[in-house]
Amino acid sequence: MIYFEDLEVGAVRELGSKTITREEILAFAREYDPQPFHTDEAAAERSIFGGLIASGWHTASIMMRLIVDGAVERAAVLPSPGFDDLRWLKPVRPGDTLTVRGGCIEKTPSRSKPWLGSARIRTEMLNQDGDVVLSVHNIAIYRRRDVAEPGAEKDDG
Amino acid sequence: MIYFEDLEVGAVRELGSKTITREEILAFAREYDPQPFHTDEAAAERSIFGGLIASGWHTASIMMRLIVDGAVERAAVLPSPGFDDLRWLKPVRPGDTLTVRGGCIEKTPSRSKPWLGSARIRTEMLNQDGDVVLSVHNIAIYRRRDVAEPGAEKDDG
Repeated sequence: MIYFEDLEVGAVRELGSKTITREEILAFAREYDPQPFHTDEAAAERSIFGGLIASGWHTASIMMRLIVDGAVERAAVLPSPGFDDLRWLKPVRPGDTLTVRGGCIEKTPSRSKPWLGSARIRTEMLNQDGDVVLSVHNIAIYRRRDVAEPGAEKDDG
Repeated sequence: MIYFEDLEVGAVRELGSKTITREEILAFAREYDPQPFHTDEAAAERSIFGGLIASGWHTASIMMRLIVDGAVERAAVLPSPGFDDLRWLKPVRPGDTLTVRGGCIEKTPSRSKPWLGSARIRTEMLNQDGDVVLSVHNIAIYRRRDVAEPGAEKDDG
């Protein structure tokens, strides 16, 4: 398990990849983001994107899946309070292979809860050409290896 | 259509509601956020949440759907470059009815592209008890009613 003490500021790690399909783009967008350049190939051709692109929330959700599979399961973290500076930098198109990489850029021990610490994680998603398509700063709350939570022996799931 | 000139700083508007089901929570989480408190009711009972809760990315995606249905279709906006300060403030549980409200808190004409302006939109999602479950700042790029884009007669989809 990776605890707050184990986080190395500046180290960057790849978390895994996923190829996005046309069918997945259409299914997500019909449910959550039915703008024509996400749901309608003919309209997408005529749009500024020149073809179908994934919803930014779909891309972000794929990022979350890769973070869960590649990092959360091995990290002593609490559920995330949020994300900052979410930016969609390039269109994501059917068949693109997306890779997530992330690294701690800042870590701060909690003053009020000495068994916890907060980390700012810079996360990027790249496509198969090495272009950054999404960038974001995650706020992650880590447990400390050397300070136990008072009175808590609870299973956090 | 709502253009940059029409945005009133400080005015807040409700955009619509959606009730989230247990099945939707499980389906989204299995695909995009398979943490036990999102995918496994027994594990969720034992977690700090005391029961199944929706992935924060699911909640954000529902927000996007309500924004598309309630605002984007009537707004002269370009695709969003991103969102800031995304915060999940309260758990979202099966059967919760989520309502989105949003308002412009700042608007800035573009210096380099006089036919555009940028708006900072404060968006909140509330549950049926009036608790804010999610808050975020959207960055929205609006067209101006009174300044045409040079040479552009393109259909943006």
